[in-house]
Amino acid sequence: MDARPDIATLMQGIGEAARDAAAELAFAPSEQKDAALRAAADAIWADRATLLAANAEDMAAAEAKGLGGAMLDRLKLDEGRVRGMVEGLRSIAGQPDPVGAVIAEWDRPTGLRIRRVRTPIGVIGVIFESRPNVTADAGALCLKAGNAAILRGGSESLRSSTVIHAGLVAGLRAAGLPEAAIQLVPTTDRAAVGEMLTMTRYIDVIVPRGGKSLVGRVQADARVPVFAHLEGIVHIYVDKAADLARARKVILNAKTRRTGICGAAECLLIDRAFFEAEGAPFVTDLVDAGVEVRGDDTLLALPGVVPAGPEDWGHEFLDMIIAAKLVDGVDGAIAHIRRYGSNHTDCILTEDDAAAARFFQRLDSAILMRNASTQFADGGEFGMGAEIGIATGKLHARGPVGAEQLTSFKYLVEGDGAIRG
Amino acid sequence: MDARPDIATLMQGIGEAARDAAAELAFAPSEQKDAALRAAADAIWADRATLLAANAEDMAAAEAKGLGGAMLDRLKLDEGRVRGMVEGLRSIAGQPDPVGAVIAEWDRPTGLRIRRVRTPIGVIGVIFESRPNVTADAGALCLKAGNAAILRGGSESLRSSTVIHAGLVAGLRAAGLPEAAIQLVPTTDRAAVGEMLTMTRYIDVIVPRGGKSLVGRVQADARVPVFAHLEGIVHIYVDKAADLARARKVILNAKTRRTGICGAAECLLIDRAFFEAEGAPFVTDLVDAGVEVRGDDTLLALPGVVPAGPEDWGHEFLDMIIAAKLVDGVDGAIAHIRRYGSNHTDCILTEDDAAAARFFQRLDSAILMRNASTQFADGGEFGMGAEIGIATGKLHARGPVGAEQLTSFKYLVEGDGAIRG
Repeated sequence: MDARPDIATLMQGIGEAARDAAAELAFAPSEQKDAALRAAADAIWADRATLLAANAEDMAAAEAKGLGGAMLDRLKLDEGRVRGMVEGLRSIAGQPDPVGAVIAEWDRPTGLRIRRVRTPIGVIGVIFESRPNVTADAGALCLKAGNAAILRGGSESLRSSTVIHAGLVAGLRAAGLPEAAIQLVPTTDRAAVGEMLTMTRYIDVIVPRGGKSLVGRVQADARVPVFAHLEGIVHIYVDKAADLARARKVILNAKTRRTGICGAAECLLIDRAFFEAEGAPFVTDLVDAGVEVRGDDTLLALPGVVPAGPEDWGHEFLDMIIAAKLVDGVDGAIAHIRRYGSNHTDCILTEDDAAAARFFQRLDSAILMRNASTQFADGGEFGMGAEIGIATGKLHARGPVGAEQLTSFKYLVEGDGAIRG
Repeated sequence: MDARPDIATLMQGIGEAARDAAAELAFAPSEQKDAALRAAADAIWADRATLLAANAEDMAAAEAKGLGGAMLDRLKLDEGRVRGMVEGLRSIAGQPDPVGAVIAEWDRPTGLRIRRVRTPIGVIGVIFESRPNVTADAGALCLKAGNAAILRGGSESLRSSTVIHAGLVAGLRAAGLPEAAIQLVPTTDRAAVGEMLTMTRYIDVIVPRGGKSLVGRVQADARVPVFAHLEGIVHIYVDKAADLARARKVILNAKTRRTGICGAAECLLIDRAFFEAEGAPFVTDLVDAGVEVRGDDTLLALPGVVPAGPEDWGHEFLDMIIAAKLVDGVDGAIAHIRRYGSNHTDCILTEDDAAAARFFQRLDSAILMRNASTQFADGGEFGMGAEIGIATGKLHARGPVGAEQLTSFKYLVEGDGAIRG
């Protein structure tokens, strides 16, 4: 007998345990799920010294491997970040339970009473990279919605994730829920990801959390449905009827508050008539803030603006760079966004209700904004408490995906012996 | 230059035309979509002689090919069926437009006002077999929800479907909507189906309408998401606290009203204590009605009951046959249904609220019923006006799929220059 089972067998065992756990979680009372989350928060906080020591080992190994600064920053934990993770667990525990909620209810002339109620989806697979706190966030959101979770983190964060996962399991155990409700894949073998992507019998949805190469691979190879966005190519359109003071404030925030998140602005579209009347002081603001503005045509005349190339349109910079262009009115902006956008988040700055309505109606981004920073594209900012990610697909989940969108539904139909004629 | 383009090129052209049409349909006013449906109804009714002649040709060809009686019945049109189809179009026109409806709306402390509004999904592919009226039903439901439709019917019904499709196009034209909003694949080449299943760039969802072999092939081969059910293995459980008179009426209707539909009962589970106290007169009713009852153990003692084999559990008969079995209470029924069910529709007959609640909570069928015939598992009976099919998947659409479930959503966010801190 082999000492180490092969990856397919390992993953099948994890899948079966997840299915069994999901069957029990489906009718677990809210109090029990919330108790598990609170106990997990306590366990992780109590054991923070172990967690920080494991994280220090992960960091040392990552530095030895020569990982970049952004990656190291995502990997790093300190007491403040652990506190944030623990508070996140408690905040998810405090939210309403989506499961069992009656979404709609109506009567039929046949005497039937029909209710549509929320149910868990089943088993969610989460594939992430270096951020160890995804273990806690994603595991907790899945549990809140009554789903079993199979978590597969990046190899560089495995020591940290293992300690966090132990805290989650301690919470499940304390609340009397199955420990397999949240499983962490215990190997860094990449074949495990390939198994997850094709385990349609065991996994209902895959959520990839990471960069474009991870998401692209998952979207291309998965036979299991995927909730994800490949890119956040976020546009801001300055309409003819924009308020200049508002525009300056919003554009600077949308680009520079954090450049590495998917809601950061990547392309600025300016109405030609607005530009002719008011100029583009927000471009100067960006240049002054250290942003490389890649402009076309007329915008090149502004101080500090460098020429945009064709590859700059539809590009996600995730950096202190923005593409900028003049367009002809709201229809010009719509045409540009339809061609180059990624259906993530797009924004119009205008005081004209008709222009805003046209922008809202004719574009089909998951999130459309008016007079607000695109950096608000986030489940927490939407009031969902937490998000497992942002989806740009059109089926089931879209925009920030919180606990509610990790549910399905069923119809409950009651009659008084009704038969069909 | 080839006279006939190859199938891949043909289907790509259809896909591109559908995408273009969908972009326009997405913001078509309700009145325009409804006008197209009403004009299509008028056109089909005015041209019914042509339709019936085309259908007679389809029928003659099908008879010459030796197709079975059930298939011929599905293929056949007469004036009454054409009237039904036309009334169906008018009824869909009369329903509320799901697109643009505000699903949820809330304010945030940041001053943001967030609305979640319904949008079309995009392009729906429908693959069906012999029923020509699916052309009208499916095309109309897709249009109602602002989606473009690509319809691929069975070869045996192509003449009939072509005439119906011409009526739909006449309606689109009369209302000023793009004719490519509803396209019928003009070839019976099976390669066209293979193209549809993998056209992820052009088709957002596939709905297969037909028998298990069609649905199974689509589910196995599709890279495009599928709304479908493979089988309706419908159970009825007679609880200890069932009302006998109600049970007799409901069971007979659930099995015999129409045996070929997916909501027909296929398996009867009887609580052992109920059986010992009351016997099973509903079994005798079924036998008297000409149903072959395949019973296990004790039930074999009843007159007319024949022995059930292991393959009878979890079997969809779609015929005057039912499997029947004693179980130990509601938990025995739940265990049987979890093992053998298909998550379509399952029913409990009981006057005990606690037993019904347990059945409703612990099973995850798309439709769970209490004291009502399972033949009500139908979008029309649910009050949806029409359905494109019944889905048993857990993502997006579940149970009867009407116009509303052929939609997606987007978030519209309005601020007053809000920036994120």
